This record gives sequence, structure tokens and C-alpha cells, in this order.
Amino acid sequence: MTETKVNPTLSINAIRMLALDAVEQAKSGHAGMPMGMAPAAYVLWTEFLKHNPKDPRWPDRDRFVLSAGHGSMLLYSLLHLSGYPLELEDLKRFRQWGSKTPGHPEYEHDPFIGVETTTGPLGQGISTAVGMAMAERKLAAEFGAEIVDHHTYVIASDGDLMEGVSSEASSLAGHLRLGKLIVLYDDNDVSIDGSTELAFTEDRMLRYEAYGWQVIRGVNGEDLEAIRAALKAAQTDPRPSIISVRSIIGYGSPLAGNHKAHSDAMGAEKVAATRQTLGWNYAPFEIPQEVYDDYRQVIPKGQAAQAEWQARFEAFAKANPEAAAEFGRRQERRLPESLSKVWPGFNPGEKMATRAASGKVLEKIVPALPELIGGSADLTPSNNTRTSEMSDFTPANPSGRYVRYGVREHAMGAALNGMTLHGGLRPYGGTFFTFSDYMRPALRMAAIMGIPTVFVFTHDSIGVGEDGPTHQPIEHLMSLRAMPVLWTVRPADATETVAAWQLALERTDGPTALILTRQALPVLEGSSREGALKGGYVVADAQNPQAAIVATGSEVSLALEAQRLLSEQGLRVRVVSLPCWEVFEAQPAEYRESVLPKSLPTLSVEAGSPLGWERYADRSIGLTRFGASAPYPTVYQNLGFTAQRVVDELKALIGA
Amino acid sequence: MTETKVNPTLSINAIRMLALDAVEQAKSGHAGMPMGMAPAAYVLWTEFLKHNPKDPRWPDRDRFVLSAGHGSMLLYSLLHLSGYPLELEDLKRFRQWGSKTPGHPEYEHDPFIGVETTTGPLGQGISTAVGMAMAERKLAAEFGAEIVDHHTYVIASDGDLMEGVSSEASSLAGHLRLGKLIVLYDDNDVSIDGSTELAFTEDRMLRYEAYGWQVIRGVNGEDLEAIRAALKAAQTDPRPSIISVRSIIGYGSPLAGNHKAHSDAMGAEKVAATRQTLGWNYAPFEIPQEVYDDYRQVIPKGQAAQAEWQARFEAFAKANPEAAAEFGRRQERRLPESLSKVWPGFNPGEKMATRAASGKVLEKIVPALPELIGGSADLTPSNNTRTSEMSDFTPANPSGRYVRYGVREHAMGAALNGMTLHGGLRPYGGTFFTFSDYMRPALRMAAIMGIPTVFVFTHDSIGVGEDGPTHQPIEHLMSLRAMPVLWTVRPADATETVAAWQLALERTDGPTALILTRQALPVLEGSSREGALKGGYVVADAQNPQAAIVATGSEVSLALEAQRLLSEQGLRVRVVSLPCWEVFEAQPAEYRESVLPKSLPTLSVEAGSPLGWERYADRSIGLTRFGASAPYPTVYQNLGFTAQRVVDELKALIGA
Repeated sequence: MTETKVNPTLSINAIRMLALDAVEQAKSGHAGMPMGMAPAAYVLWTEFLKHNPKDPRWPDRDRFVLSAGHGSMLLYSLLHLSGYPLELEDLKRFRQWGSKTPGHPEYEHDPFIGVETTTGPLGQGISTAVGMAMAERKLAAEFGAEIVDHHTYVIASDGDLMEGVSSEASSLAGHLRLGKLIVLYDDNDVSIDGSTELAFTEDRMLRYEAYGWQVIRGVNGEDLEAIRAALKAAQTDPRPSIISVRSIIGYGSPLAGNHKAHSDAMGAEKVAATRQTLGWNYAPFEIPQEVYDDYRQVIPKGQAAQAEWQARFEAFAKANPEAAAEFGRRQERRLPESLSKVWPGFNPGEKMATRAASGKVLEKIVPALPELIGGSADLTPSNNTRTSEMSDFTPANPSGRYVRYGVREHAMGAALNGMTLHGGLRPYGGTFFTFSDYMRPALRMAAIMGIPTVFVFTHDSIGVGEDGPTHQPIEHLMSLRAMPVLWTVRPADATETVAAWQLALERTDGPTALILTRQALPVLEGSSREGALKGGYVVADAQNPQAAIVATGSEVSLALEAQRLLSEQGLRVRVVSLPCWEVFEAQPAEYRESVLPKSLPTLSVEAGSPLGWERYADRSIGLTRFGASAPYPTVYQNLGFTAQRVVDELKALIGA
Repeated sequence: MTETKVNPTLSINAIRMLALDAVEQAKSGHAGMPMGMAPAAYVLWTEFLKHNPKDPRWPDRDRFVLSAGHGSMLLYSLLHLSGYPLELEDLKRFRQWGSKTPGHPEYEHDPFIGVETTTGPLGQGISTAVGMAMAERKLAAEFGAEIVDHHTYVIASDGDLMEGVSSEASSLAGHLRLGKLIVLYDDNDVSIDGSTELAFTEDRMLRYEAYGWQVIRGVNGEDLEAIRAALKAAQTDPRPSIISVRSIIGYGSPLAGNHKAHSDAMGAEKVAATRQTLGWNYAPFEIPQEVYDDYRQVIPKGQAAQAEWQARFEAFAKANPEAAAEFGRRQERRLPESLSKVWPGFNPGEKMATRAASGKVLEKIVPALPELIGGSADLTPSNNTRTSEMSDFTPANPSGRYVRYGVREHAMGAALNGMTLHGGLRPYGGTFFTFSDYMRPALRMAAIMGIPTVFVFTHDSIGVGEDGPTHQPIEHLMSLRAMPVLWTVRPADATETVAAWQLALERTDGPTALILTRQALPVLEGSSREGALKGGYVVADAQNPQAAIVATGSEVSLALEAQRLLSEQGLRVRVVSLPCWEVFEAQPAEYRESVLPKSLPTLSVEAGSPLGWERYADRSIGLTRFGASAPYPTVYQNLGFTAQRVVDELKALIGA
């Protein structure tokens, strides 16, 4: 694997100068990390990474994640130099509107240029990579190592290792013995504030030993042979590996080793001095042909590897046509036709929590949808996320379809994203809705990337009862609805819960959060899967209605009860269920107007922050305080969620 | 310190049975942890903890934090048995509406019964305790060990140690060498899903060694002498200490050692069996007098300790009357009179980012307000949080007033809360606004507790520019506004930034988030500190206005520019700045109506999610997509934040 290079230094310096020149041209960005990690990245990309720049989507490619996303020019340089569809012109437009080279690497599935995941918020990349390595393990167990057998490589920074999410994810990776996960830790002693001595003096490598990782200490970041040896050792160890690469931030520049090298343009003088120090006799963005020749040796190598894989795949397909078709279907993220036949139905009059309904839906669809891989952050009995046929995903049982994430919501969120990005799986993970706060950065990453991760959030309101205010979501619904791309679905009963899962799974362009009750709810007479699939619909109308009550989730039952009481008083009120605002708002204006006519006085009822309900309602029953610990009927009663209150507010609204 | 107990087993079993009986009565709750940790808690509370149940507010008391808040009955039992103002009747009302014994321990400053912080969301307690220990260190350096010299004790669970926030905080505690922080780790091999073997197989103790802690392994949770020895060793070591207490969840019950002992009522039969096993011959909530006698030995001991402290304090006050007065002022959280004289003024025409204005405010108030302790999560040069007179808070310089939190936003949030709760300090901490997501659970804890932690969030919108969508907040403003109690303040210029700090510091009943720009903004002609202190006001009016534009932060300048353009077209438009919705909404209705008359067609402009602006506006300019990487004027332009767009939308609104 170690070939003789014409001149590795020249190739390495090409990365350094591309980064420096791009930052200089953009007048912003981070060249320090690319300059320090260029040698390690060079060795990884040209000698170890299994990839074909001419087919960035090859399913069995190694994954590379630049967790230290601020050093994006490192990745862009590697992609360009190796022959991915990223041109010099793209590099020149670093950090400019509409370019393929934004400030931090951004995952785009179309066109996919080789950026495996969006990074920038520290800790997300390495934790997402854990999910990728999990997906590889799972799919290898399912389809065989002939078809799925690749590594996940990460470059991570001090900041990545300081973030709690990476601690959670690294502990999980060690627990799962993800031996094909290899992290190059840019151990450069510098963060934004200055030396890591200011805040980060723990023994990082000992910590990773504690997680059960192979730890390779003190690799000189300029010593290609040492880097090679470390990567080889990492590849052969059954544990995940972390290699401490002792690098020099801003290597070659007058600011080398200084925290001022971390970011921002250095100015013409220092750039010129760097050119001199590195012996780089080329203009900005001028790359000598021998550098391209060097990097692009990976193309024939990658093509050959892919061709071999293709041959193996064809043999596999011959022997296992169904499995091969299944592999292809899942790569394309197409749902099987058969799924449409298994959705369960529920009978009005039954009573069950929507989390329980969700569990029943999963019982039906898990057998029909082998790409589903579930899990929970140590709340399995509460989240109803594990079905009777699921076994745990463990080192001994890598084909298991249920992940025990431990009390690690944030790592779970990032790992779900990593599995989704990897392809071949549709992951979901559960926790209490209030703890969506713990994984919010990962949720946002799913939304930014537009990937269909499914988040199962149970215990969705003051209906949690005795556990009290820390466990009762208030602001969470609205704060998720405010997030672009994400769909937030809060079904009113078991029937709508089916629709919620259908929305989540049929979607491929963004994440979905399912918001489910702890407490039992009646299956409603008027509830409708079709209606819920439109985001909102009339669940119970009145002839020539005088007013409407719009609600979601558990409050739809309350609205219906109020409707009945109002009807007894001769008042004609429509009840609208609005489980998913985002989907409803995508309906044609006529449909929306037919459900919630602007002329109809409307009262909203939702056991959460009323902020934002002004969009649909003239008056709102909501919560502007935190909840309280007591049996849930008492909490509902005392915080004003009673049919009588709804009646009173509705009458006040219409002056009746 | 080790006195002969009449019958420690009886005292210990009292905790176990109170927990079990209370859960049985409430039909919900968690008795497993209290039953396992009762012996360790007993030794800690009766022999080590320096406290006076008759004055729970004594400033030099040891702090005790039950990080595993679900085991709240452990804390309630200890408080009651030791003679805090918590009666048997309160215990009987466990988890009932309005009781002092909610499902998870809740901090209430009035009356304060000895619950030092709200816990329940795992990881928060231990991380908050780190802040308490920091406060102790800081105040001891300032006022001397005669006045401030106490420990912070924590009981933490497996779940606490799995959460990333505790990893961050523990790393920080090790870095800062917080030797008076002592954690009793309830190492019971069980979490909700089952054995910790399912998900948590890392070597926790080795991890804490890596953080630089003293690690005391394998202490038998039933061996009082071993617990004593461990606590003594912990007290004398200069490092923070963690003691692995090998306990048995649900000790004494038929479910002992089983994850089913974690929560929920066991049923009468198992409770009876437990009585038998433990030899507990008392009715539910019946406590033999000898148990009270045993626990309440701490009262005279505590009173004596406090009396000694009081004597020392009086001597100190005699020698240092000003320092003693200062100590008292800060305990009461009163701002000094002198503060009113130091607020800076700014001149219209100046141009500066509100983060820079915030830095200038801090330059003025830091000398006047010695209780201020600043910090940043490794973004000091960007957050403008460190003033010229601040030095770093380090083991060698414990009187330093600036904390280098590292890239640990979540631990920072929890530590800020811990310092606030401890008393004597007013902490603030900075990061980018987008990373408020990383600390959201801590933010929420501050809001639930109603404590005046100050969060400084800079880089508040697409104005971040080149760093791109991961670094550009969109949904964050609205998602914070949806949170009860929290104040979200987004000043329009330097003048309003003064008001923002004033609001944050004068407040004592809840946290404040300051939302500040990266980019420079003009100091406005019409901006007003008084107006901003009301949450909203008319920043520039027109005679007999036809419409209003309401905006916050950087978009107020844009609104004013649009107003000028509209005025050239003969249109009379008022511009309203609304930096703090919560404060504005607390103004009298007449004031609000005078600023934003219902009859006035209103357009809102804010570079964030428009959801919720329906409350004030008939039409909104906002963002329903994520941002983009480019120089910020380009991003503003391309995403529709131009004066011309505002003009067009306003004209469309009024049909002009």
C-alpha cells in the first residue's frame, strides 16, 4: 500500500497553499487546521481511503468525515486534487454565495460531490461517523462482507473531543466495538482562546482507553511513515481506534503553532512568507501537474476496487437475486410495495396512548421494512420502540435491529443521522419529548441536511403527570415547528399515529419528529389517516359552524368533548385536528381554507406554548408557565385544560 | 467525626421504607435508588455534611446535590429526618399537586427547604454542582477561608455519567482542580433498560482518572466504615473525587438488583416482603423516635458550626467592614447603588456590533460589580466577554473573574446555574447563538428554577455570513421566546445593548439571554435605553402613521431605512423596536396599545423564523429556510432582507 511518491511534500504543500490562498481570497475561513493536518490527510486519502472519485456514491466506499468542519478547505482540496467533481473554479469561490465550497462542508445529495455529512458544530461529525460505522456493521451482517466492508475515517479536533456529544458517541462506539471506525485526532494544543492548557488538560488518550478504544499516542504529524504505521495498526485492531496526530496549526506560516493561525486571512505578507518557507513557487490556485498526477493515482485504484466489488455484487445477485434487489431498493431509499398492506387499523372506542399505538404500528411495519433499525436512549419500556421480533444490535449480534443507546440522547441523534446518511437503513430513536433538548443540535443537522431521520418523542406534555416540570414539555412543540425542514407530527389518536409514521417514512427530504402521549387517548370516531396525511382536517364538523376549535394530539379529544357540551347549548362548532403544520401548510390554499376558513372564529387548544398559534387562531388555550408534579388529570385540570374551560373560552370568543 | 450510632441500620432502613411507602402511596416514583444508596447517604448526612437544618440558607453550608433526581425520596427523607422544614405530611403528599415533594427535587428560593437545585434531567445535577464548587473556590479566594470553606457533595447515577454534559463538566472540574467537589457514584449496574451491560461498559473510573480526578473504586455500599474511609480520603485530596459506591438497587426488596426496582410502585405484597426482609416493624410513614434522635444529632452540631462561623464572620466584619457589607449585599443579590452611574452612553452615528457594545458595557460594569464572573465556551475573541481588567479563574489564580470553559457549552450553562444558585456571584457565559442548542437543557433549568443566569449569545442571525447555515440561527429566537420565564433580549444597537444588560442584571427571578450581532450596526438616532427597558417602544414615528414596521436587533436599522424610502413616497410609517417580548408583554395594556395600536397595519421584520410574529404583525418578513455561506451583505440581500423588500411588503400590506 505504501507506494513511492514523486514528491509527497509538494502534494502536501498543495493542500496547505490552497487552504491559505482560499482563506486569503475569501478574507475569512480557517487555514490553520488544513495546514497542520495536510500530511496525515494526504497519507489517508492517497494510500488508505477506499474510494473512487469518479463514483462518489459507490456504496462500499470508505466514509470520510471532517469533524473539524471549520477546516473545510482541507476536504475541498482533497476532493479537488483527487478528481472529485469539484473544480479549481469552485475552490476560488470558497465561502461565496451558491458555491460548492461553503464555509463549512455541507452535505448535498444532488449533486453529491463526496461530502459525506455537514459538519461545523463541533462534536457532530465524529458522532455522526459512529452512526455510519454502525450502519456498515449492520449491513455487513445482513448482506455479507463481500458486499459491505468499509472503514469510516474521521479527522477530529480538540473542540470535537471537548464536546459532550463526542464523549457519548465514543463511549457507545467502544461499547459496540466498532473496529472499522478510525479517528485521526488533530492534537495540536491550540483552540480559539489559545493553548489547550487554558481549558483542556485532561488525558484525552486515557479517556479513550476507558471507552475501550485502541489508542495510538503521539504520532508526529510530519512523519508520513509514522502516520502510515498508525493507520495500519488501526485497521487491524478489533476496537475503534484513535490516533493522536501531533500537528502544528498553521504549519509553514509565520503564525505556526499559534492560536492566531486558527482562523482569518493572514494578510499578503504572511502568505508570501509561507510560500517561501514551504518553497511553493506557484501562484494562488496554481497546482503543478505532478501534484494532480500524484493524487489522481487513486482514481484507477478506486475504479479497480469498485470493479472488483461490482463483480462480487453480480455474483451475489446471481446467487441471491432477492437480497440483491433488496440491497438496491434500500440504496435508493424506496419503500417496498408491501408496506402499504401492513398499516394497522384501530377501532373507535379503543383507548390507548399514542406511544402505545406507535408500538403497535412498529409491530406491523418492522417485519415489512427490514431497513428499519430502532432504538431508545434507555427508555425502551416507555418509548414503545422495541418490537417483539427485534433483537439487540451488539458486537455478538450485529444483525440485531434494536440499539441500546444508553442515556445518551445527543449521541443517539447524531448516530441516527450517520446511519441515515450511510444509506441502506432507516433508523429511528426514542426518548422523552422534553429530552429532545439534549439532542437538538443533531436534530438541526438532520434538518439542514434534509435527511429522513425519524425521532420518536413520547411523554409529550403535562400529561406526563407526576414526573413534574423537568419532564413536561411546554415550549418544545413550537420550538420544533420553528425549525425549517423538520416535520413535527403530533397525532390525536392511534389512527393518526399510523399517518404520522407514514409521513415520516414516505418522506426522503428531511427529518420527522413524532410527538406521542404517555397517557391513554380514545380512538376517535372522526379521526382519519387520510386527513392526517394532509397535515390537518376537520375531525368533527357542525352544520353551518359558528366557530372552530383547532387542536393537536391529546387536546383533540378535549376539543371534541367541548364541542358536545357546546352543541347541547345550541352552539355549532367545528373541530379541526392539525397534527402536522408543515404538511398542512404545503396543501393548496383552497384545501386549507376549507378546513380553517378565515371567516370562522377559531380557538386553539394545545398543552404547550401558545406562541405561534396566532397563525390559526383568534384565541388560544396554552401554557405560558412550566408544568407541575401531580397525577396528570389533576395537572390538566389545574392548568386549565378542561372541556369547561374550552367551552368558556369559545363562548367568550364568539360573544355567546 | 465517627460517632457511635444507636442503630445505624434502623436509621438507614427508615430512608428505604419512606421511599418505598411514598412510591407505593403515590403509585409512581423511584424507590430503587434511595434503597440502594441509603447507607452512603446516611453516612454523608450524619457525619460529613456541614449543615444546619434550622438555617438551610447558612451561606457556608456544604452543598448537597442529588443529581439522580428521580430518587427524590432519598433527599426528602434526609431533609425530613434531619429536621429541615419538611414534615411527614409533606412526605405523604409525594408527587401530589402543590406539595413540597414533587416527583423530582425542585429548587424554590422561598421557602427554601434545602433543595439546592432542581434535578431530574440526567447530568444536570453533577454539572451544576461543578459550578457550585467553582463559586466556593472563587468566593473563598475573595473573602478568605474563614468565611467561605465548604464542600459540594453529589450523588450521581449511571445515567448522570452517560450524559455528555457530565463529561464536559467533569473534565472542567478536573482541569480546575476543584478539590472540594466529591461525587458519590451510585454504581449499581442497572439502568432503565436493564443491566448497564446493555449500553455502558466503558471503564468509568479510568475515565475520571483521565479527567484528573481522585478515583476511589469499589466501595461496598453496605459497608459504612468503607464509605467513611472513602469520604475522608476524598476530603483530603486536592483533586475532585469520585467514589464508586457499589450499591444494590431496591436493596431489601424482592426486586433487589433488578432493573424493575428502578421505578414504579411494587405492590403491597412486595412492600410487605421488604418490611420483613429489613425487619421494619412500623406502619407506612411511621418513624421511631430513635431514628429522629439519631439524625437530629446533626442539628446541634450544625448550629455549633454555624455559630463558630458567625463568630468568625463578626471578627471579619470588624476588621473589614466594607468586605463584610459586600458579602451581605451579594448574598442578598442586591446590586450596588454605584452601578447606576457607570452605564456607558453611545453616540448616534457610531457604528458597532452589539457584541462589541456588550464588550464596552462589560468594561464599565465589571469594575463596579465584583460579583460578575464572565466566561466563554472557547469563543472569547468573538463573544467580547472578557474585559481588560479580567484575569482567568485558574487553580493558581482562584480570584480570577474569567472562566475558560473550553468548547463545552452545555457544561458552561450548567456551571453558570450552579454559580448562580450558590450565591455571591452573578455569572455570565458566552457562545454563538446557534450553539445555544448545545446548552438548551441548562437554559431550561435556569428558567424552571427562576434564577438570574445570564447567557450571552453573539452571532445572532444570517449576519454571521461566511460560516454558513450551521452557524446561522433561524429558529432560535422564537424557540427561546416560547420558553416560559426566560427573557430573550435582542437589542437594535449599542444603546439598547446597555438596556439589555440592565434588564439581565436587575432581574432576580429568571434567566436572560442576550442576543447580539456579529456585524456592525449604527447607533440609532431614536433608540432609547428607557424604551428598551420596557421591552419595546417607538424608535421613529411618523405623523399620523398609516402603518408600522416592528423589528428587533439588526433589522431595526433596515426598518428605519425602509421608513425613509417610504416617506419619500409620501407614506407615513412608524418603526417599533421590540427587543424583549416578555418585558413588553408585562407592560400595561395602554402602553402596549400606544406602541403597537391594533388598528395600525403592521409588518414585522426579523432575520429568523416568522412563526409567532402573527402576534404583533399582519405580515412578516422572516426566514423559513436555513441560511447560506457568503459574505453577510450578500446573504441578507439574497434572502430578502433589503430595505426595498421591506418597502414592497409594506406597500402590499396597506395596498399602496
